[in-house]
Amino acid sequence: MFNARQALATLFHVSNPNDIVFTSNTTSALNLAIKGWLKPGDHVIATMVEHNSVRRPLEFLKRTMGIKVDYIAINERGQLDLNEVRNSFRPETTLVVCSHGSNLLGSILPLQELGHLAHEHEAIFLVDAAQSAGTYPIDVAEMGIDLLAFPGHKGLLGPQGTGGLYISPQVDLEPLLHGGTGSQSEELEQPAVRPDRFEAGTANTVGIAGLAAGVHAVLEYGVKQIYERQWMLIQMMMKELAKLPGISLIGPKLGEPRMGLVSFNLEGRDAAEIAFVLDREYGIAVRAGYHCTPLGHMTAGTSAGGAVRASVGFDTTEEEVEAFVLAMRQISAQ
Amino acid sequence: MFNARQALATLFHVSNPNDIVFTSNTTSALNLAIKGWLKPGDHVIATMVEHNSVRRPLEFLKRTMGIKVDYIAINERGQLDLNEVRNSFRPETTLVVCSHGSNLLGSILPLQELGHLAHEHEAIFLVDAAQSAGTYPIDVAEMGIDLLAFPGHKGLLGPQGTGGLYISPQVDLEPLLHGGTGSQSEELEQPAVRPDRFEAGTANTVGIAGLAAGVHAVLEYGVKQIYERQWMLIQMMMKELAKLPGISLIGPKLGEPRMGLVSFNLEGRDAAEIAFVLDREYGIAVRAGYHCTPLGHMTAGTSAGGAVRASVGFDTTEEEVEAFVLAMRQISAQ
Repeated sequence: MFNARQALATLFHVSNPNDIVFTSNTTSALNLAIKGWLKPGDHVIATMVEHNSVRRPLEFLKRTMGIKVDYIAINERGQLDLNEVRNSFRPETTLVVCSHGSNLLGSILPLQELGHLAHEHEAIFLVDAAQSAGTYPIDVAEMGIDLLAFPGHKGLLGPQGTGGLYISPQVDLEPLLHGGTGSQSEELEQPAVRPDRFEAGTANTVGIAGLAAGVHAVLEYGVKQIYERQWMLIQMMMKELAKLPGISLIGPKLGEPRMGLVSFNLEGRDAAEIAFVLDREYGIAVRAGYHCTPLGHMTAGTSAGGAVRASVGFDTTEEEVEAFVLAMRQISAQ
Repeated sequence: MFNARQALATLFHVSNPNDIVFTSNTTSALNLAIKGWLKPGDHVIATMVEHNSVRRPLEFLKRTMGIKVDYIAINERGQLDLNEVRNSFRPETTLVVCSHGSNLLGSILPLQELGHLAHEHEAIFLVDAAQSAGTYPIDVAEMGIDLLAFPGHKGLLGPQGTGGLYISPQVDLEPLLHGGTGSQSEELEQPAVRPDRFEAGTANTVGIAGLAAGVHAVLEYGVKQIYERQWMLIQMMMKELAKLPGISLIGPKLGEPRMGLVSFNLEGRDAAEIAFVLDREYGIAVRAGYHCTPLGHMTAGTSAGGAVRASVGFDTTEEEVEAFVLAMRQISAQ
């Protein structure tokens, strides 16, 4: 477990590995961050690209604790207006939360600017790195990130059921889980020492061993190299998809920064049907539907039927991208 | 995952497998049960054998929400006085919580009677089956259990990082985790449908596959057979340990029901030192210290230095028990 913490600390430029705590997934990490930080009366600035793992905890606290939330608009290229963020701060704003990469639009949000704005207004900055951990460079100090939630099983190449939260030494949270830590057993309260404070109960040791192996592989390949490889593949895919009649590609334009995914719709065709045909007839897995981000679909104008999302990994080959494009060409001609 | 749910439903006599939800360990399951059920002003009846995974969430809600808790005394044989439980009910009592088997004393608590008392007083009954799931028969209907928290990695033979909670269809809880469920994505709140309501985020699919295999093995051997085998081995161990000068065995007497563990102290000797010698010189792993149950140690009179705990599994051999006894004989003679 310490080996995994050290590797993650190297990856995210965290100085003390014990400021990284393990959780069962990004959702658990975000729940710990959001519920462990916010107090009644607090105001939060979030965005319209947030996943339900951010939105639902915020809406829960709105309902039960009376917090207030502004969701900053995102334009069709997946970007926000920093002036709108600046104008949304109130004296009660204690948290800015933002998804690093939109899981629908593929856009990359300007963390450094958001972190700077948050600190200027004495709020803390929480980043949902579900789409970016291991596939886009993250430096918590440089980007002003106080809380970084990440999955183990996506860009970090670990198994499902792993993930974690970086918690700045300047920030204390109420733990989400209270229980045995194997340390200071006689105390009624969770011990203050990290990572124990936030890791009550038996750890997913086998999963974390897998996560350590994944992070070491990412460090070896290089995050920048992974991003560039994925970007090149997704540009290649977009260039070909754009030629199909009736297609609409969602998010950043060709040539702009983008995570290794592209979402789209074919005019008059059902997203779920396209995914079904890709799976059954071509053996290609995509995700159709709402991707747990209804706000993102409002932004993209795809609330009615969702969209199809195709993703690449750094080990996806050019031939696989061509096979996918060919399949889509055939489906669109049917 | 459904296969694992079905096997667990068979094991615990649960009629609908979707009433079993997966969590990352027993601690998470107990936090979901306790924090998801209790409301300000509620009164809880717990016992002096509770693990910190029950005690710390209760103490947290005492501090933040003003709930009240009575911890029922346990005698030196690890049993409680049902009259004391009966007399502890108040109009505000909404929860009775009890560890099925004490992780320190080894005693088995009278679930059926406690479940009956809880329902008589319109409270619900939560059981911490950390020590008993897979090693002692559990029937949620017969025992009147509304909430059953269990680990995957102990008696159920699954990997660490797995566990779950059975939630009676008569009981609704506020989820501990809010987030994406892959269902009803457009809703602001967690969907009501089970298990989705309580399983936001990516599941530990590999771990749960391991848990399914473990539960199938337990069903094949038979829980009653596992209990009897462990009981026989632990009686054999106790009989020999009792002959050592200065030893005090904790919990039920020889011949009484007991989980597959025995805790003890050697007069004038440090528990941690005994564990260290067993590990380094004999290759035998025991657990020394407080076992995350300070209340249990108060009961046992071992708050000063904790105790040494030795456990058996159903696949422990008689030869292994003899080797342990021999090691303890040598250590006690030093």
